[in-house]
Amino acid sequence: MKKSEFSFIGDIAKMFATLPHNGFEPIGDDCTVLDMGDDALVISTDMLIEDVHFLRSASSAEEIGHKSLMVNISDVAAMGATPIATLLSLSLPETAQGEWMEGFMRGYHEASSKHGMALVGGDTTASRDKIAINVVAIGRAPKQNIKRRSAAQVGDVVCVTGKLGTSSKGLVDIMFGDLNTTAAKAHRIAQARIREGAWLGGREEVHAMMDISDGIASDIRHIMESSGVGAEIDIRLIPTDYDIRFATTGGEDYELLLSIAKEHFETIAEAFTTATGTPLTAIGRITEGSDLVWLEDGTPSDIELRGFSHF
Amino acid sequence: MKKSEFSFIGDIAKMFATLPHNGFEPIGDDCTVLDMGDDALVISTDMLIEDVHFLRSASSAEEIGHKSLMVNISDVAAMGATPIATLLSLSLPETAQGEWMEGFMRGYHEASSKHGMALVGGDTTASRDKIAINVVAIGRAPKQNIKRRSAAQVGDVVCVTGKLGTSSKGLVDIMFGDLNTTAAKAHRIAQARIREGAWLGGREEVHAMMDISDGIASDIRHIMESSGVGAEIDIRLIPTDYDIRFATTGGEDYELLLSIAKEHFETIAEAFTTATGTPLTAIGRITEGSDLVWLEDGTPSDIELRGFSHF
Repeated sequence: MKKSEFSFIGDIAKMFATLPHNGFEPIGDDCTVLDMGDDALVISTDMLIEDVHFLRSASSAEEIGHKSLMVNISDVAAMGATPIATLLSLSLPETAQGEWMEGFMRGYHEASSKHGMALVGGDTTASRDKIAINVVAIGRAPKQNIKRRSAAQVGDVVCVTGKLGTSSKGLVDIMFGDLNTTAAKAHRIAQARIREGAWLGGREEVHAMMDISDGIASDIRHIMESSGVGAEIDIRLIPTDYDIRFATTGGEDYELLLSIAKEHFETIAEAFTTATGTPLTAIGRITEGSDLVWLEDGTPSDIELRGFSHF
Repeated sequence: MKKSEFSFIGDIAKMFATLPHNGFEPIGDDCTVLDMGDDALVISTDMLIEDVHFLRSASSAEEIGHKSLMVNISDVAAMGATPIATLLSLSLPETAQGEWMEGFMRGYHEASSKHGMALVGGDTTASRDKIAINVVAIGRAPKQNIKRRSAAQVGDVVCVTGKLGTSSKGLVDIMFGDLNTTAAKAHRIAQARIREGAWLGGREEVHAMMDISDGIASDIRHIMESSGVGAEIDIRLIPTDYDIRFATTGGEDYELLLSIAKEHFETIAEAFTTATGTPLTAIGRITEGSDLVWLEDGTPSDIELRGFSHF
């Protein structure tokens, strides 16, 4: 489905390209962008389906509520904006209409409260069978702060916030029944890089940015294709506590992947960590052309890596 | 589920009331409203679930695509705004991923094109079983045009656009296997009152407004509760081609229900019909207190009416 999702997005974008844009930027980034004058508004939407994106047996209702918000506002952070509000649609079978729903809302409220966000609308409806959740995340930023996938420049340093692979390692732990390892907890209680995204949005030396939801092996290609560039990534530089496959092709880390003008990388990284407490690690560089080259300690690697798939 | 939906909305609104509003109006209208300076942005979200809101056996994929957009932009029209863009989330089982999806997108595109709207984002994902559709509708209007449920004033004329009851009569026709009656077609191919909503938004004599999705017997109560008023409605005045139960408690007409300053009603109604070709019919008035009184030719009626329920 991941593959068909991407071609579907491509086909849809083409199909709607001739309609008026009404002030919005075309499809193709983590969020759509609407010019509001001095500020821009960014908006994204994501759907989570029971037994596709989560299992009721593996996560509590609170955790799913928390995660539903976090994965969506991660898209706002990835644009360099601050999330201000969400809209929530819930389709619930009878078995989820009482206690489960209350737990879900507690988790959703806790995550909203943590980031000072409003809940400004929604819809609830019955479902015959599975839970469906749709979250719309709205963010705001000074117009010049908005970061796009298409802004990477040849020579930029490619870097990531935090550590990668924890969430997918946690998913494997959960599949083996180990629900309480550090990684399993990180998978169940996702954290979006909200302060980090807004901080990076404020720095013009930051060029392209997106969040890592499918693993960098897959996600870096979005920056490459949007920017018309290639990239080299050294797998020895990727910050992780786990196997490199988790760190490159594992999904749902919700760290930020960005490119920074080479001459400013050291200064930005130091100021960033001082301001947010989060590490920013250089893992490669933007190149001419359109190829993704994996290195190991600077030497071309023959490692084969693909993006994470839910299916 | 309708009952629990409303109490859920009430509980949620209370739960989130203490969080920052970040420029948005609190929950409680057809759309949330964000102040953008001279203009306001309105946003709503709605979820449609297979076998709850539609049957694949009774509607074509094109019709469901068309309807998914129309029922959502109806909320924008109800605020007095013009719809400018949507975001679309689709969760599709394997049986709907090829031809059905293409048909759906053709219907969605046709409706978007008709009203000059952009598609600015979305999400597609697999589903184990049923189709789930979520549409976010975004509208824009000069700030002073925005109409709210809470603005009805004692003495206002209560009126409706078009005719009521057609869609629910059509649903019954479809249940009996008559898919091609005039009413059945109206049910399958919903039309939102887009030009009408924007026109009425431009008139300050129009006070409260909302769209009729559950039948006026249920929907008028939202205006009454939000405005702190009562209402009298004369069932003999309700414009319909069908049984009065369809016209009062039948859902999914997507006509507009509004209140207009009494002394201006005639002028507005005439200008409205000249501009849009759509009739505007007085059906009652806003009263003091909090009661809804049904009349028949001016005399209190003992008719018992309830809103339409999907369940």
